[in-house]
Amino acid sequence: MKRVALIIQYDGTNFSGWQRQKHVKTVQETLENKLKELSSENIKTFAAGRTDAGVHASGQVIHFDTGSLIPANRWADALNGRLPDSIRILESVSAPNDWHACFSAIYRHYRYIINNGKIRNIFFNRWTWHKYQVKLDENLMSLALKGLQGKHDFFAFQKTGSSRPTSITTIREIHLKRIGDLIYLDIKAKGFLYGMVRSIVGQLVLVGEKKISPDIFYKRWSNKQKECILQSAPAKGLCFVNAVYNNNLFKQIKQNDLFPKFLISDFS
Amino acid sequence: MKRVALIIQYDGTNFSGWQRQKHVKTVQETLENKLKELSSENIKTFAAGRTDAGVHASGQVIHFDTGSLIPANRWADALNGRLPDSIRILESVSAPNDWHACFSAIYRHYRYIINNGKIRNIFFNRWTWHKYQVKLDENLMSLALKGLQGKHDFFAFQKTGSSRPTSITTIREIHLKRIGDLIYLDIKAKGFLYGMVRSIVGQLVLVGEKKISPDIFYKRWSNKQKECILQSAPAKGLCFVNAVYNNNLFKQIKQNDLFPKFLISDFS
Repeated sequence: MKRVALIIQYDGTNFSGWQRQKHVKTVQETLENKLKELSSENIKTFAAGRTDAGVHASGQVIHFDTGSLIPANRWADALNGRLPDSIRILESVSAPNDWHACFSAIYRHYRYIINNGKIRNIFFNRWTWHKYQVKLDENLMSLALKGLQGKHDFFAFQKTGSSRPTSITTIREIHLKRIGDLIYLDIKAKGFLYGMVRSIVGQLVLVGEKKISPDIFYKRWSNKQKECILQSAPAKGLCFVNAVYNNNLFKQIKQNDLFPKFLISDFS
Repeated sequence: MKRVALIIQYDGTNFSGWQRQKHVKTVQETLENKLKELSSENIKTFAAGRTDAGVHASGQVIHFDTGSLIPANRWADALNGRLPDSIRILESVSAPNDWHACFSAIYRHYRYIINNGKIRNIFFNRWTWHKYQVKLDENLMSLALKGLQGKHDFFAFQKTGSSRPTSITTIREIHLKRIGDLIYLDIKAKGFLYGMVRSIVGQLVLVGEKKISPDIFYKRWSNKQKECILQSAPAKGLCFVNAVYNNNLFKQIKQNDLFPKFLISDFS
């Protein structure tokens, strides 16, 4: 058996998330069906990070084991020829047998985008949450993020129904940036809790709207007041940007961040 | 009868262009059907510029006349509630009765985008032509554009089947810019010939690939060698950016260019 690693993008709009489930269309099932067509094996895939229904990925990393004679670097084209346009394999490479897409990752990077402009804009609406009743105050929102970096119990941001044994995790890096009407929130962590990013964004928007202060934001999560944290931002604004490993197996894909920034500005 | 002007965006992927035709789905027909539902009138719409099958619009301008009591500024929301996600009305305003979306326009602006990177990238693939066999030389491509500005007979770039009486038109402005892997071609003119932009791009790519020189490019079109101009770039990379009028009727939409640039670069 040989191990193959893939780096893939998907438009999560019409999928019930990454993970295979009964009776609904998922990215994993779609991919595994095509792997079976190509190899005649029942191939099981492992992803760097889970994505919920409607969440996108610009650099998801996958691995699988196969006895097939297809060379590792040929899987990308072979799969792309069969997959729907909503899933694209950017590169396929051979991986060591002790390398694991999920367990070998040092950290994962998710991005959430809020479109805080009047115009929904058809050209990035698919990947952003259109929220424009008031102009969100990005400075207050950034202030609210201050205490989040580091190792904390993020129980308040964990969606119920999680099978994770602990709600303690470490955020390596979190920051927020406004570029025109779009507000980008970037979070890097080894482990993410179920629903964590969307729950943070739900609270952050309240800060941006001046409905709660950065101080209240901090107290809510640090005091584990989950009962105060009801809002969750919609899935469409969330994207799994990438996973980072000690050594990058991919040869063509050197860039860590393939998710574009959408800039509106007159050219000439 | 009152005249109403709309500024609209559409994803042309699944439409057979703007103009109503029998047996196929067009943007005009889709819009007029919804106008009829709202007004019970047979409303005819006029657009600033035609778009062929698969071509997009980030700032198309439309007008129509109606006896309906719906206030001009309410049509946008009323229509958006009924239209598919692929068509969005950005703003609706009242227009003078002698104002015409097509005839009052001073010029129109189209943009063509070539993705000249290895990665097709799911996040902008819908709006770009993925052409990556070789790195296109954007300096040679820019050079080739030199003679195009001004009033010329562009017969060589006119697709056959045009009902236009003359192939002479004036290009106000044309320029090409590479931002990372993406090459943007912007053209502004009062009148465009049928298939003109895509035909120019088809030839420009040959220049970028060094298959023909900027000089040959110039000779082909200036000598009306239509028989040498066979390539036409695919529709998906073309977008109708906007139409410009002496006085802008729209109050909310002040920006001329709502089509985003897609920037790939690591954030942090």
